[in-house]
Amino acid sequence: MCVDAKDASHELATASTELKDGVLRRVAELLDERVADVLEANAADLADDRAASLDAALRDRLALDETRVAAMAAGVIDIVGLPDPVGEVVEQRTLASGLEMRKLRVPLGVVAVVYEARPNVTVDCAALCLKSGNAIVLRGSSYAARSNAALAALVRQAVADAGLPQSSVELIEGGERSELAELATQEDIVDLVIPRGGEGLKAALKDVATVPVMYAASGNCHVYVHEDADLEMARRVAFNAKVQRPGVCNAAETLLVSSAVAERFLPDVLGDLQEAGVELVGDEGAREAAGDVPLGEASNEDWDTEYLGLKMAVGVVDSLEAAIDHVNRHGTGHSEAIVTSSDAAAERFTEAVDAAAVYVNASTRFTDGFEFGMGAEIGNSTQKLHARGPIGLRELTTTKYVVRGSGQVRE
Amino acid sequence: MCVDAKDASHELATASTELKDGVLRRVAELLDERVADVLEANAADLADDRAASLDAALRDRLALDETRVAAMAAGVIDIVGLPDPVGEVVEQRTLASGLEMRKLRVPLGVVAVVYEARPNVTVDCAALCLKSGNAIVLRGSSYAARSNAALAALVRQAVADAGLPQSSVELIEGGERSELAELATQEDIVDLVIPRGGEGLKAALKDVATVPVMYAASGNCHVYVHEDADLEMARRVAFNAKVQRPGVCNAAETLLVSSAVAERFLPDVLGDLQEAGVELVGDEGAREAAGDVPLGEASNEDWDTEYLGLKMAVGVVDSLEAAIDHVNRHGTGHSEAIVTSSDAAAERFTEAVDAAAVYVNASTRFTDGFEFGMGAEIGNSTQKLHARGPIGLRELTTTKYVVRGSGQVRE
Repeated sequence: MCVDAKDASHELATASTELKDGVLRRVAELLDERVADVLEANAADLADDRAASLDAALRDRLALDETRVAAMAAGVIDIVGLPDPVGEVVEQRTLASGLEMRKLRVPLGVVAVVYEARPNVTVDCAALCLKSGNAIVLRGSSYAARSNAALAALVRQAVADAGLPQSSVELIEGGERSELAELATQEDIVDLVIPRGGEGLKAALKDVATVPVMYAASGNCHVYVHEDADLEMARRVAFNAKVQRPGVCNAAETLLVSSAVAERFLPDVLGDLQEAGVELVGDEGAREAAGDVPLGEASNEDWDTEYLGLKMAVGVVDSLEAAIDHVNRHGTGHSEAIVTSSDAAAERFTEAVDAAAVYVNASTRFTDGFEFGMGAEIGNSTQKLHARGPIGLRELTTTKYVVRGSGQVRE
Repeated sequence: MCVDAKDASHELATASTELKDGVLRRVAELLDERVADVLEANAADLADDRAASLDAALRDRLALDETRVAAMAAGVIDIVGLPDPVGEVVEQRTLASGLEMRKLRVPLGVVAVVYEARPNVTVDCAALCLKSGNAIVLRGSSYAARSNAALAALVRQAVADAGLPQSSVELIEGGERSELAELATQEDIVDLVIPRGGEGLKAALKDVATVPVMYAASGNCHVYVHEDADLEMARRVAFNAKVQRPGVCNAAETLLVSSAVAERFLPDVLGDLQEAGVELVGDEGAREAAGDVPLGEASNEDWDTEYLGLKMAVGVVDSLEAAIDHVNRHGTGHSEAIVTSSDAAAERFTEAVDAAAVYVNASTRFTDGFEFGMGAEIGNSTQKLHARGPIGLRELTTTKYVVRGSGQVRE
């Protein structure tokens, strides 16, 4: 399958934007035309004995309905509207030797995506890879095998309708752990593996992968309220960062507050959080400053935990530097925020904090391809190499130097 | 050492261009002042019993003299002249939410370089890392232990003279294989490992590394002479690509010739190559078209071999597509050239060949940081992620999104 995808990738690499956008429009059409087939396949996945073992949240991620299929189609149409990164001239100059050098954006080749039982990922990732000129090998979860098969078949149909090779989109059914190791060692065939899933999946890949892997990040994100912060703003920002969508990687897990304002700030914001159902734990300083709001005792692990849910750790720090140290020690380099009215504090925090995105007076929740104006994303990277932050169409490409001469040789 | 380097990297990351350039100027001064010490240390390395086992080429790489030390100093001064990539604004825009987003270039943090018995690498790599705001951990060869120690001490002195932490430059003496595994698994401490050495070193790293590794490339490079090529130009280009400096990664290893011009083209160019001492092997077509020049029989392995010396494989192909297939099958994605007078052939070749650099009517030997106007390089990458082609100052950085708001929260 990977070799077939590699062959297909050569054709895709030179496909025009028009042709690729045509494929995506056809995918959206077919999602509409075949919604009954897709829902039937999904119902079979949900009715499977094995699906009974899933908890409510996982079942919800697996489940499709007409609205969700329509949302997939709308997502694909959004990708049509994004600029094609392929062919973009990143740099261009005449070299001292007289050579005309251009650095062009080109597709990576074959991108493999490994994911859990979320059928929408099948369509989202295929659309992003096709638009960026890449072939894709999808390795879904066996829990979603029928849903994924129906969706991949439909995307392959759209690809074939445009005269492109069906192997541009390959689906591995999933279930065998050995498939993962095989996929992650296809050197010179698979150009990139993107795991979308829990820490177990990432650890398993780290052990075996010889092809490059871009890890969709975990996010242990912080909001730090400096002594000179507008406390009403800080209250809104901290609340939003925790509560607006607690299950995602850019939600905040820890609130740090300057000791100078802890007693004035904490009772109100902790009251808001408590009211929203957030379980709160804190260090000694936070518990003393919390007023009437009951705060559990934070353990050492709390500072390193991505709760991905309605729980928050609260700490009081004596200085900006102490806040920066805490963030750099415990953070995962995803999204970090300071609330302050001082330019100097903002500058120091943004310089010293080592993370993909650092915010001044805004919620961490903005680290997102759409919010950043990049369009749909395939994940968020906390790695430093290649892509840091949202992984959009451009991050699914590499570059090639194309150099034209008139017989130049090196002296 | 790695933890110390990480601590130092935080200070280096915010060091001004002036301060960093001052360090480099001081390195150049100290190389001049202490040349006697450096040469004494080098003489001791060369006089060591173990050095007797080195072949002439390796001894030559290990050996220093006044000219070579002066060349190192000149190389460091060249780096002073290069623009500082740190702080460069890669993108900047106001988001729909009103947030002011800037994508800034920032240092990676700690870069580890693993290299063979070439003392000049100690200074070159330290200078590149310091200029790009990175701390460096050098792991040299035990054969060059005394030379490396003298050079690293001098760089550390220059760092300290500027008030920066000496741990910005750490030297591991080398010798223990276990050091390599330890270095390559320092997750969250070492940000990148760059091996500069043979395939054995790269394979050893691939097996153990959990931190990102950027492999300095091997290059199995081709020159393809199309049927409509200016044959005099093709003769110069092919000769230069093979002979001008055969021991480097961007030298050509294989010459491919269109069957339409093989008989006219090959005798002259093969005569030139033979005269320059190049051992020639070929396929049946090449041997038939070679005229009086004796051509050995090319084995299957020849097409996949990076000779790094005065040997060349010669093949005759029936079409442009056959040439492209050969290059994509056997090449290592480094530097590939076509000689042609047709825009259509040039365009097809540059589009379809999957390599870091693709040349039209020029020698493959131009893939180089200086030739590309990027300045000194730490190596050449044939990977597709992060850096493809010369790895210069900019490639030693990552990016950070710095986002300023006025209390924005996500709806």
